[in-house]
Amino acid sequence: MMGAAAAAAQVSDPIAELITTYHELNSSLVEELAEEPSPLEFMRYVARNTPFVVRGGASDWQATKTWDVQYLTQFLRDHSVNVAVTPLGNADAPTLDERGNTVFAKPHEEEQSFPDFIEYLTKQETDPDFQGSEIRYAQTQNDNLRHEYRALFSQVQRSVPFARIALQQDPDAINLWIGNARSVTALHRDNYENVYVQVAGRKHFVLLPPLCQPCVNERPLRPAHYARRQDQGRGGVAGGDDKNGNGSDANNADLELVMEEDADDVPFATWDPDNDQVNATKYSHLATPMRVTLEPGDIFYLPAMWYHKVSQSANEEGVCIAVNYWYDMEFSGPLYPLVSFVRSINSMPEESSN
Amino acid sequence: MMGAAAAAAQVSDPIAELITTYHELNSSLVEELAEEPSPLEFMRYVARNTPFVVRGGASDWQATKTWDVQYLTQFLRDHSVNVAVTPLGNADAPTLDERGNTVFAKPHEEEQSFPDFIEYLTKQETDPDFQGSEIRYAQTQNDNLRHEYRALFSQVQRSVPFARIALQQDPDAINLWIGNARSVTALHRDNYENVYVQVAGRKHFVLLPPLCQPCVNERPLRPAHYARRQDQGRGGVAGGDDKNGNGSDANNADLELVMEEDADDVPFATWDPDNDQVNATKYSHLATPMRVTLEPGDIFYLPAMWYHKVSQSANEEGVCIAVNYWYDMEFSGPLYPLVSFVRSINSMPEESSN
Repeated sequence: MMGAAAAAAQVSDPIAELITTYHELNSSLVEELAEEPSPLEFMRYVARNTPFVVRGGASDWQATKTWDVQYLTQFLRDHSVNVAVTPLGNADAPTLDERGNTVFAKPHEEEQSFPDFIEYLTKQETDPDFQGSEIRYAQTQNDNLRHEYRALFSQVQRSVPFARIALQQDPDAINLWIGNARSVTALHRDNYENVYVQVAGRKHFVLLPPLCQPCVNERPLRPAHYARRQDQGRGGVAGGDDKNGNGSDANNADLELVMEEDADDVPFATWDPDNDQVNATKYSHLATPMRVTLEPGDIFYLPAMWYHKVSQSANEEGVCIAVNYWYDMEFSGPLYPLVSFVRSINSMPEESSN
Repeated sequence: MMGAAAAAAQVSDPIAELITTYHELNSSLVEELAEEPSPLEFMRYVARNTPFVVRGGASDWQATKTWDVQYLTQFLRDHSVNVAVTPLGNADAPTLDERGNTVFAKPHEEEQSFPDFIEYLTKQETDPDFQGSEIRYAQTQNDNLRHEYRALFSQVQRSVPFARIALQQDPDAINLWIGNARSVTALHRDNYENVYVQVAGRKHFVLLPPLCQPCVNERPLRPAHYARRQDQGRGGVAGGDDKNGNGSDANNADLELVMEEDADDVPFATWDPDNDQVNATKYSHLATPMRVTLEPGDIFYLPAMWYHKVSQSANEEGVCIAVNYWYDMEFSGPLYPLVSFVRSINSMPEESSN
């Protein structure tokens, strides 16, 4: 029955048409607002699944005004915190293993005293004689600002008012991120509406809308995690006997990738918009990534399911600090099923050429 | 590169999965509100592309309180209006022609005096001796309430406040619909956000979300229009010499379908959710149509791109009257390109079975 209709309506490559049409109808610049949106204004962005940045929107938050290395070191002097440790700043990232296979590398995680942790970050950025090469990042995304770092929680807003009112909910998680310029968060997406607040240093986002899934070369990767080599005789870097910022022992040789043989593959984007000739799909060149740099005090809305790669610049103290609020996304309505549909279509086998 | 990913992520029929997933995540009941939403509340429905009805939301409008046959006849006694005339109430509808082909039938349009027009409607519904069989419907969708019927415009709201504020625009068109129970608007969709206000009688909507395009059996139909047969010697029903409500001459034999040979095909839904075994696609059975009946004074939000079939019940006077506000839809964001993508995928030829 569809014969004539198919001939009329058919486009040569619907996926290419989808991505091209989207880019024709949408700006590739992130909208900049001078002040926080009202809940209604915010909801218009949510409806369009479109990011924006509020320049200076959080510049009067206590965190933005007071969190520096000295303050945090003093405030959290008796705390130990979870630290992600990697050789390359590649926590949760596609990584070549020794045999040249791309695996999904999770960080080694360990407890470190907060003062030791932040001293390591700063020395690595600011001390030319610093010997440590491993990369450390406090990046637990488990609502850590209301748990592990709850002592600091009163210094940020409990929720972002425009989002709380528009979305009619409190955040599902509030996360604190403390790292330096050595860490990069690989391109991925989350099923959350995400409000980012930059506190110190800068973050550089590269963004792709959800329907660019065919551009990112999602592949099932074997999971692995870094672990400290046992034959180095080190039980953990953060031992109290290492007053030197854990510098001299913290070299890459300490960390080895351990395959998680019994775990399921992790589907993950393997294309990097900043290295776009590698791992490209036939659609990658159609993507026009959006880019935005967050300065201290900026508030950034990252809509649900957007791909984002995040690099960091440290401030003069050598750190980059941010807080993000995850609000549950809306699974009703057409967007979630349609984005899943794009993924399904993209995973169909190519037609045979016979 | 996609081999393993394809095997993992592939579903047997992505279109079936899309429709099924949508229905799992969304209610098939139209939400009922007891009062008008705020602009923010409205925007949440727009964001979810989800309909609702406000019961009695327009019950205090002057139109709802005053428009009856006597009032309108008096108020528009000197007006002539555009009337769509069809043999079956099938204006702009897939229709079998004499050779059994489905064509897209447009109505015969003619000017009639308003009093004659509305008298015909009422007599057809209420007078058992009435002889007319052709169906008449004032249904020009060209902003007629601000033009052809502008005399009545001050008796409705100039815009619907929650929509005007949320969508930041005035209506692109405001349309008045006057008919009786004999007319049915065939399943179709519009690229507008649509706010319907029921004034008199009832309208019965059958609704499908945009992503159910694969269910509606859209086909390219040859366009045709009804015309009065010239050999009947009638220049137009609404001549002033016909004081009898145009009854005796208004029979189907008057109207013939004229093919528009030079016009392009009209892509149009040919599946009818109320007759679901006919013209079904392999996906039609997956659709779960929503149904809602509008009572006088109800306000109904029909989201952009939703398929709707509309039947009518006349009130005790024999008429059904409604007003609708079309607001431009948002073409930026992902929804429009994704809905087009579904149509493109659905129009791809089936894989050959060799």
